[in-house]
Amino acid sequence: MASKGLLVVFSGPSGAGKDTILRRLLEKNQNIRLSVSATTRTPRSGEINGVDYHFISKEQFHTMLEQGEMLESAEYCGNCYGTPSEPIRNWLSEGYDVILEIEVQGGAQIKQKCPDCASIFMLPPSLEALENRLRARGTEVDEVIQNRLAVARKEILEAGNYDYLIINDTVDNTVNEIDQIICAEKHRIHRHSDLIERMLNNA
Amino acid sequence: MASKGLLVVFSGPSGAGKDTILRRLLEKNQNIRLSVSATTRTPRSGEINGVDYHFISKEQFHTMLEQGEMLESAEYCGNCYGTPSEPIRNWLSEGYDVILEIEVQGGAQIKQKCPDCASIFMLPPSLEALENRLRARGTEVDEVIQNRLAVARKEILEAGNYDYLIINDTVDNTVNEIDQIICAEKHRIHRHSDLIERMLNNA
Repeated sequence: MASKGLLVVFSGPSGAGKDTILRRLLEKNQNIRLSVSATTRTPRSGEINGVDYHFISKEQFHTMLEQGEMLESAEYCGNCYGTPSEPIRNWLSEGYDVILEIEVQGGAQIKQKCPDCASIFMLPPSLEALENRLRARGTEVDEVIQNRLAVARKEILEAGNYDYLIINDTVDNTVNEIDQIICAEKHRIHRHSDLIERMLNNA
Repeated sequence: MASKGLLVVFSGPSGAGKDTILRRLLEKNQNIRLSVSATTRTPRSGEINGVDYHFISKEQFHTMLEQGEMLESAEYCGNCYGTPSEPIRNWLSEGYDVILEIEVQGGAQIKQKCPDCASIFMLPPSLEALENRLRARGTEVDEVIQNRLAVARKEILEAGNYDYLIINDTVDNTVNEIDQIICAEKHRIHRHSDLIERMLNNA
């Protein structure tokens, strides 16, 4: 019914399980494409260009920014990060749904530029569960975990600006819920303002 | 995640296939209850009280109306029709989702009284398909069919006031789409304004 794809902003605190959910969602729904961010930082061991990030130079980044080719951008620790708009535009026009996994400030930039997108915030079952997940990774010292929890609390406060709220209780449930939200969103009336007129005029 | 059920207003022109879709939806999703209208008209052959309608007297109807116990009401051909609010209130508080199959004027009354409801308008694939379905019933003369088509065109013009628009292309697709809309709606942020606060305060 929809003539083009849906843009989905997907956020949630670090440790909520976003990567697992997205991997499973992409397996389940073949019509989804995942946006890949661009960054000026050096690739880490194992990271693949075009998969984990588009690794580009500072000059390239600023040229894209000036030409309006970034949907959103931010700077962390002296490195630039951004969302190239061209692949998203192409996928959407081909009818694919595109998911942008992004932190809350970036999500807000996208929502402002693309008010037609659907935004989903994923919560952990509780802050305690989030802390346990962060500790289970076993890679962070206590101070880093406390910092991440403080950031998580700030991010969760922004969840009220999203269209949908889901709780990552089990992977299967959560994947289904996101899939249902994407399907349902396509039927929202503002996406079909022309359909009613066309039906009445064709008859 | 939702603490109580969702109220769904479901409309569409006569001949769009609403009854078939609802029967199949109730088989698929056991958490749905179907609202039964009250009427002062005489039961037709085969109609069961409490299933097809609550058949009540004019006195009962007006008492309920005066006591605010009707979510909406209308009069056709000297008979009164209305939606008793008590069973809906009870089902919702028990966590059931409640579907109200109703024409567009009644739907507008419900949306005004219960802005929290989700409203779905179901279109036939085309006006031609609608005409074919009405003719296939074989029970109506041409004039009645032309009248129904004229009413359908007026109803379809009101579809823009609904939250969701679906096209009844195949029964399976349409049933799935309504089911997905009901599931997705429960995750909309305005239904969970308290959740974010609770999560941050419990930790």
